[in-house]
This record gives sequence, C-alpha cells and structure tokens, in this order.
Amino acid sequence: MKNTFGTSVSVTIFGESHGGGIGAVLDGMAPGIAVDTEFITSQLDKRKPKGRISTSRKEGDEFAIVSGVFNGRTTGTPICIMIPNSNTKSGDYEKTKDLARPGHADYTAQCKYHGFQDYRGGGHFSGRITAGLVAAGAIAIAALKEKGITVGTHIKKCAGIADRAFENIQNDIEYINTTEFAVLDPSREEPMKAAITAAAEEGDSVGGILETAVYGLPAGVGEPWFDSFEGVLSHALFGIPAIKGVQFGAGFDLADMRGSTANDAFRSDNGRVYTATNNNGGINGGITNGMPVVFSCAVKPTPSIYKEQATIDMSTNENSPLQIQGRHDPAIIHRARVVVDSVAALVICDMLAQRFGTDYFIGEQI
Amino acid sequence: MKNTFGTSVSVTIFGESHGGGIGAVLDGMAPGIAVDTEFITSQLDKRKPKGRISTSRKEGDEFAIVSGVFNGRTTGTPICIMIPNSNTKSGDYEKTKDLARPGHADYTAQCKYHGFQDYRGGGHFSGRITAGLVAAGAIAIAALKEKGITVGTHIKKCAGIADRAFENIQNDIEYINTTEFAVLDPSREEPMKAAITAAAEEGDSVGGILETAVYGLPAGVGEPWFDSFEGVLSHALFGIPAIKGVQFGAGFDLADMRGSTANDAFRSDNGRVYTATNNNGGINGGITNGMPVVFSCAVKPTPSIYKEQATIDMSTNENSPLQIQGRHDPAIIHRARVVVDSVAALVICDMLAQRFGTDYFIGEQI
Amino acid sequence: MKNTFGTSVSVTIFGESHGGGIGAVLDGMAPGIAVDTEFITSQLDKRKPKGRISTSRKEGDEFAIVSGVFNGRTTGTPICIMIPNSNTKSGDYEKTKDLARPGHADYTAQCKYHGFQDYRGGGHFSGRITAGLVAAGAIAIAALKEKGITVGTHIKKCAGIADRAFENIQNDIEYINTTEFAVLDPSREEPMKAAITAAAEEGDSVGGILETAVYGLPAGVGEPWFDSFEGVLSHALFGIPAIKGVQFGAGFDLADMRGSTANDAFRSDNGRVYTATNNNGGINGGITNGMPVVFSCAVKPTPSIYKEQATIDMSTNENSPLQIQGRHDPAIIHRARVVVDSVAALVICDMLAQRFGTDYFIGEQI
Amino acid sequence: MKNTFGTSVSVTIFGESHGGGIGAVLDGMAPGIAVDTEFITSQLDKRKPKGRISTSRKEGDEFAIVSGVFNGRTTGTPICIMIPNSNTKSGDYEKTKDLARPGHADYTAQCKYHGFQDYRGGGHFSGRITAGLVAAGAIAIAALKEKGITVGTHIKKCAGIADRAFENIQNDIEYINTTEFAVLDPSREEPMKAAITAAAEEGDSVGGILETAVYGLPAGVGEPWFDSFEGVLSHALFGIPAIKGVQFGAGFDLADMRGSTANDAFRSDNGRVYTATNNNGGINGGITNGMPVVFSCAVKPTPSIYKEQATIDMSTNENSPLQIQGRHDPAIIHRARVVVDSVAALVICDMLAQRFGTDYFIGEQI
Repeated sequence: MKNTFGTSVSVTIFGESHGGGIGAVLDGMAPGIAVDTEFITSQLDKRKPKGRISTSRKEGDEFAIVSGVFNGRTTGTPICIMIPNSNTKSGDYEKTKDLARPGHADYTAQCKYHGFQDYRGGGHFSGRITAGLVAAGAIAIAALKEKGITVGTHIKKCAGIADRAFENIQNDIEYINTTEFAVLDPSREEPMKAAITAAAEEGDSVGGILETAVYGLPAGVGEPWFDSFEGVLSHALFGIPAIKGVQFGAGFDLADMRGSTANDAFRSDNGRVYTATNNNGGINGGITNGMPVVFSCAVKPTPSIYKEQATIDMSTNENSPLQIQGRHDPAIIHRARVVVDSVAALVICDMLAQRFGTDYFIGEQI
Repeated sequence: MKNTFGTSVSVTIFGESHGGGIGAVLDGMAPGIAVDTEFITSQLDKRKPKGRISTSRKEGDEFAIVSGVFNGRTTGTPICIMIPNSNTKSGDYEKTKDLARPGHADYTAQCKYHGFQDYRGGGHFSGRITAGLVAAGAIAIAALKEKGITVGTHIKKCAGIADRAFENIQNDIEYINTTEFAVLDPSREEPMKAAITAAAEEGDSVGGILETAVYGLPAGVGEPWFDSFEGVLSHALFGIPAIKGVQFGAGFDLADMRGSTANDAFRSDNGRVYTATNNNGGINGGITNGMPVVFSCAVKPTPSIYKEQATIDMSTNENSPLQIQGRHDPAIIHRARVVVDSVAALVICDMLAQRFGTDYFIGEQI
Repeated sequence: MKNTFGTSVSVTIFGESHGGGIGAVLDGMAPGIAVDTEFITSQLDKRKPKGRISTSRKEGDEFAIVSGVFNGRTTGTPICIMIPNSNTKSGDYEKTKDLARPGHADYTAQCKYHGFQDYRGGGHFSGRITAGLVAAGAIAIAALKEKGITVGTHIKKCAGIADRAFENIQNDIEYINTTEFAVLDPSREEPMKAAITAAAEEGDSVGGILETAVYGLPAGVGEPWFDSFEGVLSHALFGIPAIKGVQFGAGFDLADMRGSTANDAFRSDNGRVYTATNNNGGINGGITNGMPVVFSCAVKPTPSIYKEQATIDMSTNENSPLQIQGRHDPAIIHRARVVVDSVAALVICDMLAQRFGTDYFIGEQI
Repeated sequence: MKNTFGTSVSVTIFGESHGGGIGAVLDGMAPGIAVDTEFITSQLDKRKPKGRISTSRKEGDEFAIVSGVFNGRTTGTPICIMIPNSNTKSGDYEKTKDLARPGHADYTAQCKYHGFQDYRGGGHFSGRITAGLVAAGAIAIAALKEKGITVGTHIKKCAGIADRAFENIQNDIEYINTTEFAVLDPSREEPMKAAITAAAEEGDSVGGILETAVYGLPAGVGEPWFDSFEGVLSHALFGIPAIKGVQFGAGFDLADMRGSTANDAFRSDNGRVYTATNNNGGINGGITNGMPVVFSCAVKPTPSIYKEQATIDMSTNENSPLQIQGRHDPAIIHRARVVVDSVAALVICDMLAQRFGTDYFIGEQI
C-alpha cells in the first residue's frame, strides 16, 4: 500500500520536498471529533527546525483542511490536509543530482523509478513529508485524549548522552509534551544540544534513540500472529525516515535476561490487574495487557553531512567524491519525536476502531 | 488480517497446540516451483526440540500437502499444508488454566476472547503454530534459491555469549544452513548450550539475538514510507512469539554513530555498484540497494519457567502463586532461527512478486 | 488477495476437485459462537447434487473442524474446516486435458498458470471448492441469526420459468430455508425441474437468476464509495463460479424507471423509519438504510454439456471438436443458492464486525 | 478501505460538494508516464453538465497536480490532484437539511455519521467527487493506451431508448471517445435527449444502462475466486453513485440461455486464439481470455427530482413532504460514462501491475 497505512482508520501521504506541496488524507476517523487547528499548529511547531541544531530551511507549514471537517468537527469522511511548499531552493540539487548521497534513497530511488523520480531535496523521500503525518496525527492524538489515552516520546539517548527513564508514565507523558526539546531530565538538554552543535561544526551529524509511552490503552487490543500490536506499529514506524530499529519494552536488553527476570508478574490490587514490571512493554502475545505500551526507535544520524564523502555518479556508475550543499539538520531526533507520536497515534486509533467499532471515538452530539 | 500476511504471496496460519492440528495455506506462489518434501522435512527438523536444551515434547511433524501441488510442482493456487497434533498432554493445563502465566498471552487472550480461547498449551498462541510457517517457508526458500537469493540466520548472542559476526555473507549463509545449532563460530556452540542447560537446571530460561542475512536480492525492491522493506518485514517478524525487537543493519548501534561513519559510501567496481560498509542493512529509504539485507531480532527468554512465580487467578482476579507444570524449552532461540528464515522468505517472495509480477518465480515448463 | 476475502472477518479457501481435499479457514469470527455441526451438515446437504437435475458424482462432504472451535464454541482464532475428496474419477480428464472446455477456466488457467494447473475436474476452479464456503458460511449464518439477521435465497427464474417475488421477507426467508428446491411458489418446482431435465436429455444445460434477501440488518452499515455495501458484496459474489451479474433492489429494471418511481419514500411509523418501496434494495449511498437488503445474481448455464462443441487443443492451439465426458450438472442454480447465502453471510459478518467491533457477535459467557 | 481502492495501483478520494475542494491521490502508477493536462481537461469536460439535460451548476473543474509529476511525467510516487470548489450555493440546503431526500444518502449518512456529516449538496456522497476519479483515471487511460489497451462506454439504453450494440469493438471505442453524447448510433442522440428533457419538464428524472468495452487486454489477468476480474471491477464500479447493477458479457440475459448457446467456443486462427461469441464478456473463471472485456452498469434515475416527495424529518423522525430546491440533473448517465471509463481504467492498471509488476507501464527513459 506504499503511501497508505491502516484499515479502519487510514492515512495516505503525498508530496515532494520541492514540489507544489505535501499533505495527507486521513480516512475513517469517527465523526464528531473536535478539530483544534491551534493544536495542529503546535504539533507542527514541534517538528519545525529550530536554532543551530537544525537546518536553516524554514517552512511556514501553513496547512489547509480541504475536506472532512465541518463546523469544527470531523464528519467521518476523508480529511485532506494540504501544506504548500514555499521556501524551496531547488537549484542546490541540480549540480549534484546524479551523485548518490550515502545513507539517502537517491540510489535506491534510481533503481526503482529509473530516473523519473523528483531528485530535488530527496523528493518524495524527504523528511518534509512527515509534516503531513504530524498534522493528521494531531487529530488522532486529540481523539485518543478524549478516551483517556495519551502518547509521549522522549529522547532516550542522543550522541551518546542518556536521558532518565520513564518513571511515572502518566505524568512524564504530560510533561514531555510541554517541552520543546524532549528530555525528561532537563539537565540533559544542554549537553545533548552541545553534542549536536559540535557535530555540526565538524560537518557531521548524530543519531539517537527515541522512547515512547502510550498510557491508558485498554487491555485486549491487537491480534495474535501477523497483526500483533508490535507488528502493526513497527510496520508504520519503520516508514519514518532514519528509523532503523524498533523494540518493545526492554527489547534487545531482554536478550541478556533470564525468564525469571524478564517475565512481568501479574498482580491484582482490588480487582485492578497490572504487572509488577513492564519488560514486555505492555504487550503479551501481540495483545495489550493494560499496562503502558512502551517502545523505542533507533534513529540513525542524519545522512546529509557536509564532510566530503565517497560515492558514485549514477549517470555513469563511476566513483566520484561528493560535497553536499544545501541546508541540512545535524540531528533530526529532536524533530522526529513528534513524528513518532503522530504515527503511533494514527496506528492506535486504527487498532481501537477495528477492535471496538467505527463509533469508538465518536464525539458528543452537539 | 490477523492470521494472514502478504499481498501477492500470502500465508494464512491456523491451529492450536492441543487441538486437531495446525497448518498453513500459502497462496500466490508462482506455478511450476518444484516442491521437495524432503527439504520441508529437513526445515521442520531444524525447528524440532532436541536434547536437554529443549522441551521433551516430541512432535512427529508429519505434514500433508492437501492442495496446490500437482505432479511435484506448485500449481499457482493455494497450497494447504496440514500438520496433525499427536503428542498432546492436555491434562497438564487443566488445573492451572485460570492462572495467567507471566510473559505468556494467557491474560491478554482472556481480555480479548473472554474465556472462550483454547487455553491448553497456549492454544493458538503456542510456538507450535510456527511449524506451519516453517513448512510454507520451505517452499518460499526453495523459490528464492532458484533466483539466486539465499537466507540464513545465526545466533548472534545467547545467554550473554556472542557468536562472530557475518563475514563472507554468501558463504556464511550456506554454512549456517547446514548446522543444527546455528553459530558461525563452532567454538561458541558448547558454551551457549551449557548456559542454556545451566538455566534449565535452575528452572529458568534464557534469550538472545538472532541475526539474519539475505543474499542476492536485486536493488529497487520495497516502497517508500509505509511499505518499506523494513516495515513489511518487521510486521511479520513481530508475529513470531518471543520477538520483542527488530533492527536493520547496525540498528540500535547507529544511535551512537556519527553520520560520517554510519553512511555507507557507494562504490563502483566495473559497473557493479556496492557500498563500502553496510550499516543500513542493504536498505535505503525503505528500498533495497543490492547489498545483503541484514537484520536482527531480539528473542526474549522463554516465559515458561519452573520457578515459582507470582500471578493472578483470572477467574477471581486475585493474586496467586504459580508453579508451571508440563514440558517446556529453557531456550527457543536455537529453534526460532528457522522460523525467522521462513517468515523472511515468505515476505521477500511477496515483495518480489509485487515488484516483478506473479510469474517472477515461475518454474521451467516440463 | 486471490483466495482470501474479508477484513475483520475473513475466509481463505483452498483445494482442487480431484486433489487431497478442499477446505476453508475462517478467521476473525467472534469467540463464543455455538458451532452446530448438524447445521453445517444440513447446509452442505443443500449444496449436494440430488436426482436427475444434478451430477451423478456423490461426495460425502464429511468435514472436520481442525481448529478454532473448543468445547463447541468458536475460540475467536482461525477455524480450519477440512473436507477430503473421495469420489474422484480423474481418468475422465486425462484424455481431454488439452481441450479447452468452452465457458470453463481451462484456457484462462493455461494462460495464467502455464500448464502447471491441476486440470482434473477444473482443479481449483471447480464448483466443489464452494463446499468450504458453505461450511464456513454456516457458522456465519448462525452468528447472524443470534443478532436477528437472516438470509435466504430463492430461484427467481430458471430456464425461463419465474418464481413469485419476495412478499413478507421475514417469513419468506424462513420458509425458503426449509425447502430443498428453493422456490417461494411450490407450484414452480416441477416445471423448473422438468425444464432442467429436458435440457439434460438434450445434453444441454440451463441457467437462471437467484434472488437473495437479508432481513434484520441495522441501518448505517457500509461505506461511501469504494467499500459500499454493494461493492464489497458483489466483489465476493462474483467469486462464485457461473455468476455473471449482480444487481441490488430493482437493479437493471431501474434503467427504465423515472426518479419519481425509483425513489423509495422514507416513512415513519411511531419513530420506526422504513421506506414505502425498496427499489434500492435497502442501500442508499453504499450504506444500509434498515430495510431488507435484496440482491439478485445472474447464474449462467452450466458450461459442462454433453453436446459436441468447437474448441481448441491448447497443446497445439489448433481447432478441435470436444465431446465432454464425466459427470456434470445440467443446472447448478438449485445448488448455488446456499453458496450465495453463505458468501453473503460471511461478507455481512465482516461488515458488521468492522462497524461495531470484533465483539459484536460474541456469545454469552458460559 | 472506504475511500481508497487498489493494491499495486491505488486511488484515494476526498472532498465534499460544498467544502474547500475535492481531489484524488493516485499511487503506484509506474514512473515515466507522460501526463497530458489537456487530456485530463478533456476528460473532465466529458463529465461536465451541458445544456438542458444537465444541472445548471457550472464548475470550472480547474485542477492542480500537487505532487507526483515532474518534468511532465509520473515520478512513480503519489500523484495528488486538487480541484477546488467554486460555484457553491450552500444556502439551498440549509432549510431542508433535516429532510431525507429519497434515493439519496441523507438518511444513511445520518445513521452512520450521527449528524456530523456535511449535508450541503450531499457532502461527501455528491457525484461531484467523481471529478477526482476522472482526473486520476485520465492518467490511467493514457498509461493503458501506451500498452494498446483502450476503454470506451456508450449509453446502451436511456429512458427506454436503446443504442445499437458494440460491433467492431476497437473502432467503436475509438469513435465513442470522440463523442460528446455517447451513443454508437448517432440517430439515437436526439430521442434520448428529448426523453431526458421531457422528464425534466415534469420535474422528474431518467436512468439507463451504460455498456463498456475494454480492448487489448492480455489473457491471464485476474484471479480465481475472490479477486476475479469481475469481482474487483464490480467492487469499484458500485462505488459510483447511482450504479445498482453490474453484469459481464450477456449478464442477466445468460439466465435464459442454454449452455450450448452461452458457451463461447474457442477458435484458433493461425495460432491466435479467440472465441466465436463473447457471452462471457472476455472472462472465464475470473481471468481474462484475451477477448474484449465487456460489462454493463445499471444507472438509476437521478434521485434529485423537483416533484414533491414523501419523506421524514430526521430531527424528529416524523413524516414530512419534501420539495427539493437547488440545481439538479434530470439524468446523469451521459456524464457518468466517463466516470465508468475512469474507474475501469484505474482498476485495470492495478490488475496489470499486480500481474506483470510495477514496471509494466513504465515510460521510455528520456
């Protein structure tokens, strides 16, 4: 399905970095959900480049809701959100268009699209397309919130510097969504930013790990085997550029545990069931157990760097040095956090609508 | 889609641990592929429990190909493979059926199926269902091999003991598929087995990491965004019980790299394009670049342990101790390797058939 | 998806006319639905050939429920139903295997499967495969009945002889499901059977129209545009061999009406909304309006006839006469009625589960 | 999937009659297809209301290609086409918004969307949304033409007046696509238009039957059972407003034939296989046989009529008379012909790309 994801609730994305614009079509959201354009704007703002740790390309990200919202609420029919492109400097890409940027999709796009792809700024592979996901995701996040479900992502690690772990998840999610730079421990912000700036000064870039928590999900959501909660969510998450790993709960650290430690003991407190630990990230057998769903995404360093790199010229398949021009991010992890939140919210809305029906998120009749 | 995965080539699985049998329906495989029942048997053998590092439940895994194979070759229509259950001791589960085994799907199944699930041996959540995937996967592996594409998985780490990394991937795949215990460095077999046995003797279990390589894939397979090669593959891989993390290439290690290291430089050698390193695991922008696809799966320790555990009684939601009976594996990583190979092969056949058409794997007319 | 249909509730079919057996995997049915094997048998009996108006091939249709049913109720996980083949006379097909039977899929199978298809008795294209749909459909029909939704099909026309129209739909459905030969007006049974027999005696076959009513569906089910109730249902119905037309309500007769006649006036009776007529077959804009859903299927004459026919030899692409051997039906419309009921029930279960959630059909806890 | 259709090639539609605009996202089209905006305009023109036989609402149908086209050719990534709304008179709908227009989706939308739907001009159910399908379809039609595949639709019957049947299909398709009013026999144009006008003068509307032919399709496309060519195509066709029946080949007329007449004899002429008749509409067993695919759609009379009608007030569920205001079509069959062509072309591109791979339609490298 390429650019469409979801079953009961689905999102379709389109656009290129330097074309007419980008956008998303969000289909299957229940009717009656209040659409708060200020919240959408604030979510897009989290994704915007800021300061020296980001690219100097500034996009207005003015969005228009073309359809699917009437009298301030969702109608239940497709919501098309358009975001025109404005601040494009396509000339930067002309002279290096045949040089495959390492770590980017230039070469694989060439193999797949045979030279017809829009090469300017990565074209359809550009991280810019995630703005559509963030706008659509804002509606999903608002719908979840009405059901008591919240989502938040922090920078677990960046350039080797770690944030503290989630503790009180409900509070931590609330807090992290108020931050501009998503660390739970404010003392980690400056060291991380300094490390990003240091890499930038060397013409280099850094990566990190994003950790996300979802609070308030009911138990019994997800399917055994192929539509496991993990499987469906990871499918969408790997669509986000630069994500190269997804793990749930303790994830790869489980490899070194014994079963007696890894197993999360079920406990009951006045009939409320919970687990004493949450190494399984709130999911057993692909189905939610009512604990917070916790997952992490590995974010590779931004592939656009200013250091000279070795590559090939795709018009001749001969070796060539490459000096990237243009405006680029020395790190995207601080911008990607809201993309992860958005994608997670969209996928979770879909799973809940499949489980509980298309009216699950319906707003109050007015 | 719950128990069906794939678009052009799809697999549907069914069955319970202690019911009449288990199986798989493989649909969309090209016609004319030779079906070698001995190879299917040998793949099922790799999944079978063996010795003290596995459960003492022995299954014949006698399979019957009910449909879709005619005169020894695939017809192009659905291949149903049935594997009857035989060695079932269901009585073991009656007395503890209300006690939610930590790390298992008992509690989440209760939340989803409201008590109607088959609780014996984990029912439909049992690892036994993977036998159907292995049988179907054997046909996919054979089809890939005809196109020069091979798949192999080694135990990258088990109980804290590491295997060596892939070196010459083509040879390593060939070698690993001849082994009973999948380590590239034979000197690691006994320490790993000893660690598993040691855990077993304490009534405990261990986990690890499986690393898989796919050799010979053409460049240009996969889609940007939601049907990225990573996304589709991880979707299916997370369906395998006990897998809690999936990463491509250097995966989570990319978090600590800089872009100048993480980027894989494109190089050309007499017109043949390759990358100098493979930190991206053969995939850029969701699309294969012609390098081997390399990915790792985190395998949690088997949740069935003999140590007493704390849990709840689901009939009352009250706390209760649990002493698991029955026959269980102190590790499943050495059995899971062939499941990962099988799932990967099925998914890759699907992606290739979508990319190049349904006749891509067609056998020679006889 | 070839041999799998459905989203929340799906069915996968497999098998060939003269292979090891046929069957179906029904996935996504809610847990707790009582499975009545006698009812399944009685539905399969409706599909069985009987007397001079059917083929003389007699199949036991002994089915085994391999998975997904526990203690007499659905578990919520995949239900595999196996029906072995027994009464096969494959020798009939050897000598004419290269002669493309007109009206059959022999030639198109050759174009698609390049000679690897199982040609015996039509292989996977055989109407025999519908037995799996009928068995799976019986479970869906039972689930619908618990929600007050009933389905029934009558032979609206056969060999030019018309049955009376539906009148009191609720009663007519109940009545028609007790009949062996599905006419609402019993006086039409003998003339239709006589016409079938007359065609058989001439080595020929007849077709007809089946009309189906679904009573008790809630309003608001179906989607605008591509997942219209009509679209989804027709998609599945056209999978039934010999069906070449599907229409809803007055269907093609609407072409000759004026809007003032075709429009179904909404009326209200003590708050209960209904329409004065039902020319739209219970569906407006792709969504149910609470009236009975009524649709008709055109069933072409059985293509297997004993009269000599002109065709080609597929091994040489030269013209050749064809004299069909074997055992064949001079009409299949009287057997197809239960296949239409079954497919409709499966599709409707899926649409209801998508609309109202996966617990919609859940049985009472025992 | 509601507003998205297709697998390898898919289309997503959005918009409402009186909202900001409408449009479509076409995904999966091969790269390199020349995009001729004049041809898109000419296709949209065929859909435009004209003269006294259509509504007096005139839409500019100015479209913008937002993405997916670069240097005049498809890139292979999603093509978003936006068509703003301009000539809206929403006030017409305010006073009658609670009166369910018979034959329209007002009542079913209320049942599904609980009052949150955009009721102005039918909102998302408006035939105006088909403009997006026509624009996207124009790209599909052009791609098919490059492969020698052409599509054309004529008004087989309107208001009881019949056109002649297809004769030389290749020529007839070419001819019909040059006509403004799609009849093969020009002498039928005036009588049909007169009948439409006569109905309009009485405040009434008429329906008819559209017949479509597809020339040049290769044999072997489509799947047995659920993804039959008929099933997939009908699924999409029923999404077009007002279509209440779909039949292939002789369709419902097959019900009165005998097998010896209905069967299409295979014939060979110097190795070229064809059938002597085409009662099966070019499809056997769900798969194309290389003959033209021929199908018909029943188009009900436009439900918007000026005659007073009986209906209910949805705010009270009480009976009420209804006098429809606004601008409406006394017939839409002459405008719908290009919608049917477009939908058919989109579906066929999808089936061909699934069958032969995503490069099937690729343009010549420039």
